[in-house]
Amino acid sequence: MPVTSFPPVAIDLLVSAGSIVPIEPAGVVLEQHALAIDKGRILAVLPTREARARYQPRESLDLPGHALMPGLVNLHAHSAMSVLRGIADDLPLMEWLQGHMWPAEAAHMGPAFCRDGVNLAMAEMIRSGQTCVNDMYFFPDATAQAVRQAGMRAAVGLIVIDFPSAWAQPGEYIHKGLALHDALRGEPLIKTIFAPHAPYTVSDPLLRQVRQYATELGIGIHMHIHETADEVAQGIARNGKRPWQHLRDLEFLGPDLIAVHMTQLTDEEIEEVAHYGVHVAHCPESNLKLANGFCPVHRLQMAGANVGIGTDGAASNNDLDLFGELRIASLMAKGVTLDARAVPAAKALEMATLAGARALGWDDQIGSLLPGKAADFIAVDLSAVNTQPVYNVISHLAYAVNSRQVDYVWVAGRPLLAEGRLLTLVEDELRAKAAEWRHKITGKH
Amino acid sequence: MPVTSFPPVAIDLLVSAGSIVPIEPAGVVLEQHALAIDKGRILAVLPTREARARYQPRESLDLPGHALMPGLVNLHAHSAMSVLRGIADDLPLMEWLQGHMWPAEAAHMGPAFCRDGVNLAMAEMIRSGQTCVNDMYFFPDATAQAVRQAGMRAAVGLIVIDFPSAWAQPGEYIHKGLALHDALRGEPLIKTIFAPHAPYTVSDPLLRQVRQYATELGIGIHMHIHETADEVAQGIARNGKRPWQHLRDLEFLGPDLIAVHMTQLTDEEIEEVAHYGVHVAHCPESNLKLANGFCPVHRLQMAGANVGIGTDGAASNNDLDLFGELRIASLMAKGVTLDARAVPAAKALEMATLAGARALGWDDQIGSLLPGKAADFIAVDLSAVNTQPVYNVISHLAYAVNSRQVDYVWVAGRPLLAEGRLLTLVEDELRAKAAEWRHKITGKH
Ligand SMILES: [Zn+2]
Ligand SMILES: [Zn+2]
Repeated sequence: MPVTSFPPVAIDLLVSAGSIVPIEPAGVVLEQHALAIDKGRILAVLPTREARARYQPRESLDLPGHALMPGLVNLHAHSAMSVLRGIADDLPLMEWLQGHMWPAEAAHMGPAFCRDGVNLAMAEMIRSGQTCVNDMYFFPDATAQAVRQAGMRAAVGLIVIDFPSAWAQPGEYIHKGLALHDALRGEPLIKTIFAPHAPYTVSDPLLRQVRQYATELGIGIHMHIHETADEVAQGIARNGKRPWQHLRDLEFLGPDLIAVHMTQLTDEEIEEVAHYGVHVAHCPESNLKLANGFCPVHRLQMAGANVGIGTDGAASNNDLDLFGELRIASLMAKGVTLDARAVPAAKALEMATLAGARALGWDDQIGSLLPGKAADFIAVDLSAVNTQPVYNVISHLAYAVNSRQVDYVWVAGRPLLAEGRLLTLVEDELRAKAAEWRHKITGKH
Repeated sequence: MPVTSFPPVAIDLLVSAGSIVPIEPAGVVLEQHALAIDKGRILAVLPTREARARYQPRESLDLPGHALMPGLVNLHAHSAMSVLRGIADDLPLMEWLQGHMWPAEAAHMGPAFCRDGVNLAMAEMIRSGQTCVNDMYFFPDATAQAVRQAGMRAAVGLIVIDFPSAWAQPGEYIHKGLALHDALRGEPLIKTIFAPHAPYTVSDPLLRQVRQYATELGIGIHMHIHETADEVAQGIARNGKRPWQHLRDLEFLGPDLIAVHMTQLTDEEIEEVAHYGVHVAHCPESNLKLANGFCPVHRLQMAGANVGIGTDGAASNNDLDLFGELRIASLMAKGVTLDARAVPAAKALEMATLAGARALGWDDQIGSLLPGKAADFIAVDLSAVNTQPVYNVISHLAYAVNSRQVDYVWVAGRPLLAEGRLLTLVEDELRAKAAEWRHKITGKH
C-alpha cells in the first residue's frame, strides 16, 4: 500500500530494523524504521512502511530483532600491538613499557608485525561493532594498507618520537609521515593525523614542527597527555610546569588536538581543555589496568569539552571491545562522582560514536545516522537472553549488550560483517599468523 | 602407546583441552590435559595422553582450542529481577528502588514473575559460564523450582524483611523459609541460605531469630551490608552506631555470613571482616552504576578476608556476566589503589570461582578442579580473534575473553550448554515470556 503516488526510487540498500538509534537527535529511538542507503551514503531514515513504498532497493535486509546504530569510533588504539596481547600484565606503566613492551618491540617490530597485528585488530574491531579507529603506531604505511584491505575507516597516526625505531631514525619521523600523508591523498576512508607519542618522549623542537605543519596542512594531532602522575611530576622537574601547561605555552593546544588519557587534571586544566576545544580520548580500561587514575569525564563534559572513548592497545586492555569500554566509562563516571546520573546511557553511546567523529573532524561524515552522512552503521541483535525484555533500547546498548551481538557492520555502505561472519578478513589466517608471532616471540610452539 | 599396563577404566566422560586452569593450585595452567569425570565427579586431572591410555570413557570430547576451568560462582544475584532489566537507569539507589523497582514489584511480583525471571537469568548465567548462584528474592520456592529445571547449582535465599509482600506477611518470612528449607532437604544441587535483606529493612528481633536458626541448623546467611553511605548514616541516626558495628554487637557476624556490597568500611571494619571470617560478595558494576562507592577489595584481601563476586540483579547491572564483573573487579582494584599489581588475573579468576564456593561453604564440592569435587566446569574457546595470540591463558580468561566464548557448561557432570546451545532451557520460550512481561508492565506490545 504505497503512501505516495510517485514511482519508487531505485537505491542500493534498504535495511529495516526493530529500532534505530541515530544518536542525533540525542536519546531518540525510532521503532520500525529503515535506513535507505545509496552510493555509500544515508539517503533517509524513515518508517519501514514508508520506506518500502518509496524505494526500490537492489538489496534489502529486514532485521526485526536488531537495533541499528552508527558504527563505533575507537578514538585511541595501537592496533598492531594486538600481537603482544597478554604478554605482560599486572604491572605499572613504566615497568610494563620498559621491561616488556619496548624489548619485544625492539626485537620484532617491522612491517610484517604491524600488518599482522593490524589485521588481527581490524577483525576484533569489526566483530565488536567498530567502523572507525584513530591509530598510533610505527609503520603507519603498513597500518594504512591493512586498514584499506579490511575496509575500515581510520585516522592513521603519523608517529613522532625522539627515539630511533625500525620505522625511522630521530629526525625522520615527521617527513616519513608527510610522505605517507601525500601517498594517502584521495583515499576515501583513510586520513592521516600527527601522532607525537607524549610530552615526555617528544622534544620541544619536534612539537613546534608538528604544530606548524598541523596548522598549515590542516592535519590533526593525536597525543598521549597526562597519562600518569609520574609524567606530570617529571614534566615539572624538567620544565618547571605541568606538561599540559608546557603544551599550552608552546601554543600546541587547539581544536585539532586529541589528548589521550588525561587522568591528571586540575580544575583550571579542565576549563582549559574546553576553552581550547581540545578533544579528550578517554581509555578507561587501560587507565585502570595500568593503575594510572581516572579521567574526570563528567567534569570535562560539564565544562563543555568533547570526550570520546578509546581502547588503547590490546597489550594494555586486553581486548578491543568498545561496547565494554563505553559501559565502563559510564559506570566509572558514576562511581567516581558518586552521582548515578553522570554519563547516562545515551551520553555513553554518543561518546563512542559522535564524540569520536567530532574529535577526528569527521562528524560531517560519520558518528550519527543523518541523511547525507556515510553509511557507517551496525546491527545489534537484541533477542539474546541478556538483552531481554527490551524496555529501553538505549539502556540495553549501553548497559546490557554483549559485543558479540553485533551481527552486521557496514562502512560507507559496504558490508564488512554479515550474519556474524567477517567478509574482508579470514579468521583462520589470522589465527595462523598469531601462532607464528607467539612462536617467534616466545620460542614456544 | 599406553603408559600403563593396567586395563583401561570405564568412566562417564573424558574432556581433553588445549589447557586447564584448575584454580587450585593457584596460577597453574595445565597444557594438553584432560578431565576424567565419573558419576558427576572429577576422577582425575591428567595429561591427555595418559588419560587416553588409562580410561575408557562412555563419552569423550576433545577441545584443543579451549580452556577448561571451574564454573563461575555468582555470589549475589536477584535472578527474578531479570524481568525488570533496563526499566530504570541512571538513578541513585533509593530513587531507583522507591520510584521504580518497588512499584513494579508491588504490581507484578508473584510465582509466575519469579519463575519467568529466574528462567531468563539461568539462561544468561549458563551461557556466560556460571554454574552456581547465590540468590536472594521473594518466592524462593519458585526460584528453587526454576533452578532445578535449569540444572544449575544454587544457594536459594530465604528472604527475610520487615514489610509485607506477595510472598509473605511480616512475621511469616522465617518460617515460610524454613518450610522451604525442609522441602529442599536431599536436593543434590540446591541449598538454602537465610537472606535478611539489609540492616535497614530487617528489625533486630528478626535478625536475632535469623542468627539463632542459622547457628542451630547450620544454614548460612546472605545480606546486603553497607551498600551506601546513606545506609551507614541512617544506621548511626537510629542506633548510634554504624550498621556493621550494630550487627557485631548483635553477635550476628561469623564465617557463615556473606556480606554483600560493603562499599563503606573503616580500617577497623576491614580488620573485623577478616577477624570474624565474614565473606564479602563484591558487586562492582552494581555499586558503580548506582554510584554507591568502591568496595576496598584489595585491602580486604590483604587483611585476610575472602571476597567473591556477584552480579546483583539485572535491574541494576544490567547484565549477569560474571566474566565482565571479574574483569571490572580486577581493573577497579588497581584503579582505586593506584597499584597495577592489585587483584592480578589469577586472583580475579579465583574470586569468581573458589572464593564464591568458600563463601557458600561449598568449597568441598566446587570452585576448583580437584579430584573428588563435583564436575562443575566450563570450556572457553580461545580461538576467537580477541583472545589471539595466546601467551597466557589466565591473562586471557581475566582480561580478554568475551563471555560468549563459553561453549560448554557442565554441572555435576551434566551438560547444560554444548556447542554454544542451551540444553535445559528453550530461548524462544524465554523471549516470548519476556515480551509478555514487557506488555504487562508497560502496557505496550
Ligand atoms: Zn596509547
Ligand atoms: Zn542485591
